[in-house]
Amino acid sequence: MNDTTTKMMDMRSQEMQQMPETSGMDTMMMQECIEACSAMEQACTMCADSMMGADMSMCRSMCANAADVASAMMRMMMRPNGMTRDTMMAMLQATTMMATMCADECMSMADMSEECRMCAEVCRQCAMACQKMMDSMSMA
Amino acid sequence: MNDTTTKMMDMRSQEMQQMPETSGMDTMMMQECIEACSAMEQACTMCADSMMGADMSMCRSMCANAADVASAMMRMMMRPNGMTRDTMMAMLQATTMMATMCADECMSMADMSEECRMCAEVCRQCAMACQKMMDSMSMA
Amino acid sequence: MNDTTTKMMDMRSQEMQQMPETSGMDTMMMQECIEACSAMEQACTMCADSMMGADMSMCRSMCANAADVASAMMRMMMRPNGMTRDTMMAMLQATTMMATMCADECMSMADMSEECRMCAEVCRQCAMACQKMMDSMSMA
Amino acid sequence: MNDTTTKMMDMRSQEMQQMPETSGMDTMMMQECIEACSAMEQACTMCADSMMGADMSMCRSMCANAADVASAMMRMMMRPNGMTRDTMMAMLQATTMMATMCADECMSMADMSEECRMCAEVCRQCAMACQKMMDSMSMA
Repeated sequence: MNDTTTKMMDMRSQEMQQMPETSGMDTMMMQECIEACSAMEQACTMCADSMMGADMSMCRSMCANAADVASAMMRMMMRPNGMTRDTMMAMLQATTMMATMCADECMSMADMSEECRMCAEVCRQCAMACQKMMDSMSMA
Repeated sequence: MNDTTTKMMDMRSQEMQQMPETSGMDTMMMQECIEACSAMEQACTMCADSMMGADMSMCRSMCANAADVASAMMRMMMRPNGMTRDTMMAMLQATTMMATMCADECMSMADMSEECRMCAEVCRQCAMACQKMMDSMSMA
Repeated sequence: MNDTTTKMMDMRSQEMQQMPETSGMDTMMMQECIEACSAMEQACTMCADSMMGADMSMCRSMCANAADVASAMMRMMMRPNGMTRDTMMAMLQATTMMATMCADECMSMADMSEECRMCAEVCRQCAMACQKMMDSMSMA
Repeated sequence: MNDTTTKMMDMRSQEMQQMPETSGMDTMMMQECIEACSAMEQACTMCADSMMGADMSMCRSMCANAADVASAMMRMMMRPNGMTRDTMMAMLQATTMMATMCADECMSMADMSEECRMCAEVCRQCAMACQKMMDSMSMA
């Protein structure tokens, strides 16, 4: 996020504290999760474009999936008015799974492609950010 | 889907029968689920645009979320090469939850807006199509 | 579109007749254009997933682009409240260009892949539907 | 972009120098344009969620459009393999138009909403970044 979008997110976060569905959420943690999802969408889009060989077809399509899921997850976190605990938890779960599986697949290609190795790293960070969100929501 | 995209999906489905991760999947059921997700993306996009009042802000933002989740789900089902059982199940779960919650919220606005009533119906059908997919995958 | 989303689009179309920005638009033609964009998003998503060889990397990435542009175009036509003549014209122009170039590239692969041949056909139809919309808007 | 995605983009940029379609492009300028599109998608998604009143319905729907167009534009720039001069120019044109119109509409709401004022600023920056890309491509 740049300075202006961060300021906008701070304003949205303050609103969230006043809504019953979202009042307990750790909004700092959510901003990190938004960044991680944005990075995953970008890394996976570039990684899918870079892979050439036929043996990379699974990795390429998983990256395309991961980019789309990350984009939907990111946007959900930017809409406090539409947020419910249950939809957030289910989508965080799906994104964590997608990020973890995509990281594993990309990592298995890391010897052939430096871009795959970097993409795996970004996916791993996204999985962790989503898991942290889920943990904090379970405790709230 | 139109005739050509249906034919393309039939070809993709035949490939799926030969891949270990996707060999057991009911591809006819999956095509119905693709249609249901596509309809939900469209209905929710139109519904979000039609709602005016401040008291409809939750419904509007949930519809925006539901459209994005449905789009990611639909695309995942169109990429047999990137499909794994675990990512499919997690994302079907998230889409079912999103569709169900959005349907409930839209239904609560049905007296004020015919578009909300119709949108709720489309979301309900999408939730059912996703649930059917999950049931058949659990049995396979 | 299924029966319910078609009915919703009819309602949106009636609203469009009462808004100054959109009052002259041929809403029947727009529904065809929405269908054509939806088909292009689906065909290109499947086509990109199906292509294996390194020599198909340009086609694959153009299909990924075409799917994303078609999706944005489709959603714009489903939001009468946000519609302006100038943004519609510019985005129709971009979608026509994208669809035409993607059709050419896919057609050049048609001997190797039946899916590319079909995808080219769907892209061609989308280019035509967008062009028809632009022509009717220029005359209005 | 975070450090890793920036490194990935640098690698993609080097490849672009070796492709005939993209060899003349200013890849530094393109990275700025990617950042600007990403910021516009985020700002517009938050802005659309924040607007309550019925009189804000045009602004809300234009923001939803702008988010979708920005997302498609951003992804196109992350796929050097699918890049052609003509599709880039047409889509940059559409994004510039969308960003400019959305900035105008948001600015007209700035007295009522600080989020609209900030969103207008982000849209304006995106329009400028796209315009700069077009200018440099016209000269190349």
